[in-house]
Amino acid sequence: MALTGTPSVAEASAALVGAEPAQPPHPAPTSQPAGLLKAELHGSVSDPVLDTMNFLNEVTTRYPQAISFAPGRPYEGFFDTEQIFTHLRRYVDHLEAQGASPEQVRSTLFQYGPAGGQIRELIADSLRKDENTDVAPESIVVTVGCQEAMFLAVRALIAGPEDVLLVSSPCYVGITGAARLLDVTPTAVPERESGFDCADLEAAILAERARGRRPRAFYVIPDHSNPSGTTMPLQTRLDLLDLAQRHDILLLEDSPYRMVSPGQQLPTLKSLDQHRRVVQLGSLSKTLFPGARVGYVVADQPVVGADDTTGLLADELTKIKSMITVNTSAVSQAVVAGMLLAADGRTSELNSETAAYYGDAMRVTLEELAKQFPAAEREALGVRWNEPTGGFFLSLTVPFQADNAALIRSAEEFGVIWTPMSYFYPDGGGEHTVRLSVSYLTHQEIADGAERLAHFIKSQSQTARG
Amino acid sequence: MALTGTPSVAEASAALVGAEPAQPPHPAPTSQPAGLLKAELHGSVSDPVLDTMNFLNEVTTRYPQAISFAPGRPYEGFFDTEQIFTHLRRYVDHLEAQGASPEQVRSTLFQYGPAGGQIRELIADSLRKDENTDVAPESIVVTVGCQEAMFLAVRALIAGPEDVLLVSSPCYVGITGAARLLDVTPTAVPERESGFDCADLEAAILAERARGRRPRAFYVIPDHSNPSGTTMPLQTRLDLLDLAQRHDILLLEDSPYRMVSPGQQLPTLKSLDQHRRVVQLGSLSKTLFPGARVGYVVADQPVVGADDTTGLLADELTKIKSMITVNTSAVSQAVVAGMLLAADGRTSELNSETAAYYGDAMRVTLEELAKQFPAAEREALGVRWNEPTGGFFLSLTVPFQADNAALIRSAEEFGVIWTPMSYFYPDGGGEHTVRLSVSYLTHQEIADGAERLAHFIKSQSQTARG
Repeated sequence: MALTGTPSVAEASAALVGAEPAQPPHPAPTSQPAGLLKAELHGSVSDPVLDTMNFLNEVTTRYPQAISFAPGRPYEGFFDTEQIFTHLRRYVDHLEAQGASPEQVRSTLFQYGPAGGQIRELIADSLRKDENTDVAPESIVVTVGCQEAMFLAVRALIAGPEDVLLVSSPCYVGITGAARLLDVTPTAVPERESGFDCADLEAAILAERARGRRPRAFYVIPDHSNPSGTTMPLQTRLDLLDLAQRHDILLLEDSPYRMVSPGQQLPTLKSLDQHRRVVQLGSLSKTLFPGARVGYVVADQPVVGADDTTGLLADELTKIKSMITVNTSAVSQAVVAGMLLAADGRTSELNSETAAYYGDAMRVTLEELAKQFPAAEREALGVRWNEPTGGFFLSLTVPFQADNAALIRSAEEFGVIWTPMSYFYPDGGGEHTVRLSVSYLTHQEIADGAERLAHFIKSQSQTARG
Repeated sequence: MALTGTPSVAEASAALVGAEPAQPPHPAPTSQPAGLLKAELHGSVSDPVLDTMNFLNEVTTRYPQAISFAPGRPYEGFFDTEQIFTHLRRYVDHLEAQGASPEQVRSTLFQYGPAGGQIRELIADSLRKDENTDVAPESIVVTVGCQEAMFLAVRALIAGPEDVLLVSSPCYVGITGAARLLDVTPTAVPERESGFDCADLEAAILAERARGRRPRAFYVIPDHSNPSGTTMPLQTRLDLLDLAQRHDILLLEDSPYRMVSPGQQLPTLKSLDQHRRVVQLGSLSKTLFPGARVGYVVADQPVVGADDTTGLLADELTKIKSMITVNTSAVSQAVVAGMLLAADGRTSELNSETAAYYGDAMRVTLEELAKQFPAAEREALGVRWNEPTGGFFLSLTVPFQADNAALIRSAEEFGVIWTPMSYFYPDGGGEHTVRLSVSYLTHQEIADGAERLAHFIKSQSQTARG
């Protein structure tokens, strides 16, 4: 066997751990590395949807001078580093108060934990108090953020090419990206400017059935949706639950912005769910903090096995999770648990200040847009936007292609950044709409940003016309 | 549209958050829930390999009185709850010492972080000092434990049905489980009682090529393997690297037990890798602690895009990760970083005590087995075992079917638990072998456990004969 380019045993022995080799045998710059072609890697890495996530994370740092309406980052003003220590201590004290020995506390923090999660009771308690949702802790799986919850749900429910995942369009890229990793192509259900309409979902279900496929689940953000900012009326929620029951599909409900939005919220689909049609994808990134990467999924659907034994969908999701992340960080769960304990589970109260802050940001943004575009001029230009009552995002329609070229011109020449809405359409669309995120800007930044945006839009409109 | 079973707007309005409805609209016990058939969920949830992980986590708790040689849990004696606070504080101080403002420290802990990870420099530094491996921080992706690293590698490299993932057999269930979630069936490369042989891998590669398939990667644990306990000799490592280069495949190297094994270790495949053939799957669960769920992957392979731009495999893995977990917990990364800083990156020194402890446990186990089975009796019975120089596991061959029935009898009648080795064979095999884990038992438990095991084996051998 030729050993060209491979060190001899003698040379390699010099590299024994602890020894000090003259020439450490790490790859020399001159070596011919294993050449990989991107085209030969899984298709997801070449899919624009995966780059979208990177774009949202990086565009703001690429133009540090610009005011950015792009990323949906939580406002940081209410965070305090010392809180991490306090919350962690509170959970440790809580475990001891519950009778845990020092060894048991140690195991809880240091050792492998249950794949389903350590703090399911606290999350169930919070759902009861915040969302009027009463589910058994066993129907909850603690996940590495809501993203893993989405991934678990798609993996479990989409078993083969005949199974259909339906998504509202425009749609959050997290669910389309997770689907893409599993070679699942979601079926887009067009959202109207007024928001989601059950008739469009039913039409999509019937069309897939006609093609011999089996619709399994519909992913939706009913409250202050990302990206469009729309909220589903109560009657639509009731009709949607009824539709899911009639067509035997599940609803994947994702509602990260409820508790950080001002005023009374409509009931979640899950709290109205009488037939366990709803799998609730839970995020704590907005209500607690993103750095913990702790989310959850409520999956109380019974699953009947070949041997007629019945378990819960949560049990199957837990099995899948054990092969992705084994279990969620015990340290992160502990900090999150400490926060939930501090608020007695009421993240709504915990977030009253935050919700007011975001509500003001949205109000100021809408006021500044109105100031920049008086009704008559708005009309003439063909500029319009929706008026969300909460959440981080709103939709703004412009009279030109809101594409990357326009975005780069906006960032470089006008110092303002936004997100092309077309990024969020699985099958194309939204070419003349932009997503504005208002979550972490000061009122002054919003005012300046709206002015810059107006200058850009007016200039770009003339360019488009001329 | 029929609204049977769905509450009216009036009823539902009573469920508005904050209001106190007379009857909370959560699923009534009498409702007909959405019935799911396990057979209609993704096939992975019905695959025994996913249940194996659950078994390993739960069998020990199912028989609390039994001595368990089953789970590969780290020994907890060196853990101390207060350390979590100390390490976290050390990292915060480190960030401030590096000039980070209080706001920047706050963002690092609370906010969304880079998908590739926050502590890549510290991990690169540790690899240089511990493993004589010099890689750029950019070629590292911080993952949610080594399990996510495996998942990312399999997803990126196995693009379609023609791509082949090779695994040594017996094999750690984490990699076969991750593959199963992606509908990837690994090709088993039989491991001999003496350990891995390059000829077997080459034969498997040629056989797959002959079938028109494309071998992409071979997963292996070269040091104190889980489950068999075998270690790959230096010459075999050199031959394997040469084989990978000649056949244009990557090696997925997983070595969680090196730093917690006594004495000098052989060089990793990565430290001998001159042609970037090795993707290193990194675990910190044994060297630091499992509860953090922090691992990493070193993927310094260049990837050439359609537009001839060249990036690193790490960049592609990062994109995939952003759709599974977004980023690894900032809190967990902070605690791990604090531990690395405390040891100046030398996890080998950090683990000298631990390595000695595990080394003693293995030595005592081998001594007790020898005491229970004198050479002559061993011969007569047809009982034998290998003698690992480190790690958590050893292989014990018995003269009867070491299946679940035998395990349950062993646990219930003899009070001793072990793992059937057959669980770890993707294509069957190991029916007469058991895996013994020695990682977290006291010497007294090992002695008693070996005695119970001997009683069981002798009894079961007679049953098998008679």
